[in-house]
Amino acid sequence: MRQSQLYTKTRKEAPADEIAKNAQLLIRAGFINKEMAGAYAYLPLGLRVLNKIMDVIRDEMNTIGGQEITLPALQEPEVWEKTNRWSEEVVDVWFKTELKSGAKVGLGFTHEEPFTRMMKQFIRSYKDLPVYAYQFQTKFRNETRAKSGIMRTREFIMKDLYSFCRTKEDQEKYYEVVKEAYVKIFNRLGIGEKTYVTFASGGVFSKYSHEFQTICDAGEDEIYIHDGKRIAINKEVMLPEVLADLGVKQEDLRVEKASEVGNIFNLGTRFSEALELSYQDEEGISQPVWMGSYGIGPARVMGVIVELLSDAKGLVWPAEVAPFSVHLISLSKDKDSQAAKTAEELYTKLTDAHVEVLFDDREESAGAKFADSDLIGIPMRVVVSDKSLQAGGVEIKERTSDTSEIVTVEQLLKSFAQNCD
Amino acid sequence: MRQSQLYTKTRKEAPADEIAKNAQLLIRAGFINKEMAGAYAYLPLGLRVLNKIMDVIRDEMNTIGGQEITLPALQEPEVWEKTNRWSEEVVDVWFKTELKSGAKVGLGFTHEEPFTRMMKQFIRSYKDLPVYAYQFQTKFRNETRAKSGIMRTREFIMKDLYSFCRTKEDQEKYYEVVKEAYVKIFNRLGIGEKTYVTFASGGVFSKYSHEFQTICDAGEDEIYIHDGKRIAINKEVMLPEVLADLGVKQEDLRVEKASEVGNIFNLGTRFSEALELSYQDEEGISQPVWMGSYGIGPARVMGVIVELLSDAKGLVWPAEVAPFSVHLISLSKDKDSQAAKTAEELYTKLTDAHVEVLFDDREESAGAKFADSDLIGIPMRVVVSDKSLQAGGVEIKERTSDTSEIVTVEQLLKSFAQNCD
Repeated sequence: MRQSQLYTKTRKEAPADEIAKNAQLLIRAGFINKEMAGAYAYLPLGLRVLNKIMDVIRDEMNTIGGQEITLPALQEPEVWEKTNRWSEEVVDVWFKTELKSGAKVGLGFTHEEPFTRMMKQFIRSYKDLPVYAYQFQTKFRNETRAKSGIMRTREFIMKDLYSFCRTKEDQEKYYEVVKEAYVKIFNRLGIGEKTYVTFASGGVFSKYSHEFQTICDAGEDEIYIHDGKRIAINKEVMLPEVLADLGVKQEDLRVEKASEVGNIFNLGTRFSEALELSYQDEEGISQPVWMGSYGIGPARVMGVIVELLSDAKGLVWPAEVAPFSVHLISLSKDKDSQAAKTAEELYTKLTDAHVEVLFDDREESAGAKFADSDLIGIPMRVVVSDKSLQAGGVEIKERTSDTSEIVTVEQLLKSFAQNCD
Repeated sequence: MRQSQLYTKTRKEAPADEIAKNAQLLIRAGFINKEMAGAYAYLPLGLRVLNKIMDVIRDEMNTIGGQEITLPALQEPEVWEKTNRWSEEVVDVWFKTELKSGAKVGLGFTHEEPFTRMMKQFIRSYKDLPVYAYQFQTKFRNETRAKSGIMRTREFIMKDLYSFCRTKEDQEKYYEVVKEAYVKIFNRLGIGEKTYVTFASGGVFSKYSHEFQTICDAGEDEIYIHDGKRIAINKEVMLPEVLADLGVKQEDLRVEKASEVGNIFNLGTRFSEALELSYQDEEGISQPVWMGSYGIGPARVMGVIVELLSDAKGLVWPAEVAPFSVHLISLSKDKDSQAAKTAEELYTKLTDAHVEVLFDDREESAGAKFADSDLIGIPMRVVVSDKSLQAGGVEIKERTSDTSEIVTVEQLLKSFAQNCD
């Protein structure tokens, strides 16, 4: 994409009312716009990042047999009353509204109930199990205070996967499969090293659930990390019996602030019994379905990436989620110059080779272009100027590096040569 | 995808309360699930179709310079009060709810206001124009009666594009560009022949707006078609002066029921003046921005495709929107048979060649498999059986054809051979 066509612009200062670092930087770089407290627009660069995060998650969900669907936000009370989650005294984040008839409807803050009900259409026999289905869907949560930028908002896309299994054992086995997929996801998203599988409270059917907590000053949780075992314990369950259960000693733990980027939960038969989702086993006996739910908030992940990886100059995107792979910068203002022509040709060739390029073809100073490039945070910067051509080619620099090098156009193109796949 | 893994199943009867043909067929084939009146879930096959419709639209929006973004559904009153669209007496489809503070918020039924406000961040000078930006975003509309299946719902994704131009002339020129893009879109989506550019009321800034109306018995509109000029007039503006203006005679028009699949609207300066979106021209004088808005509802398009193209046996998908390109059916129940092995190999080879295949590997009768295949409506059916192998290969049949032919596996693969692109 030509930067001269990109309608967003960078700005030097963040809005005064925005205190979270992730929102400050993302607004300054033109990735998001604050629409109201707790609701952000994703602008061209920001939407590209969000989509790439979702693509990584989708890829790993498909790999473990997930089938993608999407449910509506609008929710009628019936199924929620059966699980005792319609009342605002039980669930305090409901947004509710009403139809013209006066009937109350809510905006889904999660989707266990409608997922379970929908599966009643399709699950009858043991032969129909297991089923794994997920969605990327907009949740609404009436948070008392919206803060932390895009890490906690009133409206956000969530990836929620639900599993439907024959037995407790099958469910627990799949739970482990998802746990491993989540580890892969956070590694691919560039925050794996700082993300810990964290023991949290499990509810009626399991001793524990697991959160994926990423060490982050802007996080709202506190976790106790055991470096030797590479696990953590949420502060909420830091009890002597849990320590004993996990075989760790309090003195071997270090406390960190962290943000919950994902969670996995054995639901047991809580929802299937309440909503009568059952199957006939091999003997023809009706059995409740065993369920699990597994969430990741792509926007929170995006916020955490910004909090963790950005530096004094601006954003720093890991390769898999960067809005573009290459930031190509032409420093010549004379369109007939060799440098300008080389930059144009390089843009065409890289684009033809399916490399995603943001091409800074604007009439700005070198200083302004470099500052914008650092702020936007694309992994590789390629500068074409009279000077670079005299030195033998184009100047490449990684966003995280302080040094640059000159390579020929051919060398650069070769490094991006793609296989036919 | 293996059909044995697909969790949805076809059903012989549609639910009794579903009167629209599109919803009946889509539910029977397992593409959608009715969650409440006016809100449907898109299941694996249905979501694939919806995404393909959106991909076609996205492609054409990008071609005409559209930049994709996404705005939230949650809306604060302020900007809507400035354009006099917050009041339910003016706009009767609002869903409204409230924050914990008691502050009222609405769920966007359209997005002219927030789009205009957001652009104030980025449009200052004539150099910043034009800007074209669009989104695929969930709208909420409190319809009194939800009917017509997925063609009119209370919650639906809309593609809404907005243009921001320097002058009336620039705006009108881009309006024509979008009009042509829409013609291309509906052609690609397989409903171009039955879709008419239809004159509708224009508001303060233009004599007319244009709707894209597709002839369809389930449609809610009536249009008067002039076959010679290939245009139509919405019943609402069938007035003598309009006929004179368009140079057509009433007796040359035929009336048809139709469904509005898209619309384009010159907004003039209505929103930019109300919300103070202006730019400095070359002389430094402040000027209001000229705007247009352009909508397409992908789910309504999907519903219209079903209404128009399906037959007595089930759904019929045009190539660009089909959930899969090939429905591969193995008729052998013996996994060690030559037919079963050939089908497995063919599935692998087609998938490796990036052909999207639904592989019916289930243990069902040939009759049940053929009936399901017709109901699901994938463009090409490929049957592998002992009989087909004896006849020299596999049996291919188009969904819309009554005749089949035998081709060799090599011939089939060659027909799908893809270039490295």
